Amino acid sequence: MDPNPHFRPVALAHASRLINHGPTVLVTSAAGGQRNVMAAAWSMPVEFDPPRIAVVIDKHTWTHALVQAGGGFALCLPGTALVDLCFAVGQVSGRDVDKFARHGLQARPGPVLGMPVIEDGCAAWLECRRIAEPHTEQAYDTCFAEVVAAAADERIFRDGRWHFDEANTALQTIHHLGGGRFVRPGGTLQAGG
Amino acid sequence: MDPNPHFRPVALAHASRLINHGPTVLVTSAAGGQRNVMAAAWSMPVEFDPPRIAVVIDKHTWTHALVQAGGGFALCLPGTALVDLCFAVGQVSGRDVDKFARHGLQARPGPVLGMPVIEDGCAAWLECRRIAEPHTEQAYDTCFAEVVAAAADERIFRDGRWHFDEANTALQTIHHLGGGRFVRPGGTLQAGG
Repeated sequence: MDPNPHFRPVALAHASRLINHGPTVLVTSAAGGQRNVMAAAWSMPVEFDPPRIAVVIDKHTWTHALVQAGGGFALCLPGTALVDLCFAVGQVSGRDVDKFARHGLQARPGPVLGMPVIEDGCAAWLECRRIAEPHTEQAYDTCFAEVVAAAADERIFRDGRWHFDEANTALQTIHHLGGGRFVRPGGTLQAGG
Repeated sequence: MDPNPHFRPVALAHASRLINHGPTVLVTSAAGGQRNVMAAAWSMPVEFDPPRIAVVIDKHTWTHALVQAGGGFALCLPGTALVDLCFAVGQVSGRDVDKFARHGLQARPGPVLGMPVIEDGCAAWLECRRIAEPHTEQAYDTCFAEVVAAAADERIFRDGRWHFDEANTALQTIHHLGGGRFVRPGGTLQAGG
């Protein structure tokens, strides 16, 4: 498939800003001709330079197995238009079904690791190389990774910052409150003003 | 000081929901008669039961030293009314000044560990016992902890869930976008509806 024409590379120095405000993400993975997608509310940056993140991936999941085998994953940030899909992909295991096909999700290989990146309906993605930390993966389901590429839809993230407005509500990030309830960004505030 | 009369205990089974949507938090700490407060945009739940979280605390900070010595910390969730304060406490080290006194912040000892919990102007707090993980603390500034007590202002969090409305904007959580810009929650969406 063709890249989404609205997507532009994001400088790695700005990659942390994509998830700094706590969006729910889709974690995509691929290895040995198989691929998967799951939803994760639990991720965060851990370092600016090198750009590193942490994400919670249950050690019993198919995604965990693919990340171990494939050496990485992508975090894709679904916009509000994908809220039902985001919830639905958590209801079934990718061991049993190709969730991309089932949900009509288009993905293309990321530029560095070839992880599936989803652009249509998403605000941004980060392609990440796993940092092997078997203890935290086992004890806390917490996977550390380095961001090796990132891109965002220029209609909502450009010049290294988010621009939320009435024209881009469909692309705005979603933040899980629990039980399938999500909140989207509201007004912005500038500290020290 | 007296507890804030609007605060009610939150069941530990629901504690993850307090930070599930990615709010910026104030990390408070205390040990040996000293105390500190810093802001952190990077935290997340990692497990429901037992309730565990991860938070990034720079290993060079005074907060890191106090957490090591005191065995825990609290995460307090500032409302929009505290956005300037939240940014200001990041501009100076607690080694040099008592930031509670400087900023007129009232805190009382948390119920289990005695960590300073801030209620006025905050939506909720989680008192957390450090889980010693020296490697991740050094390599990723990432501190794991178990939530041992939690409480929230019933005007915005009750019955195990958030209630954002026009009457409680001052208490609504803030989510750091970078550079002192924050976003607060907007409309909610129910998946699968």
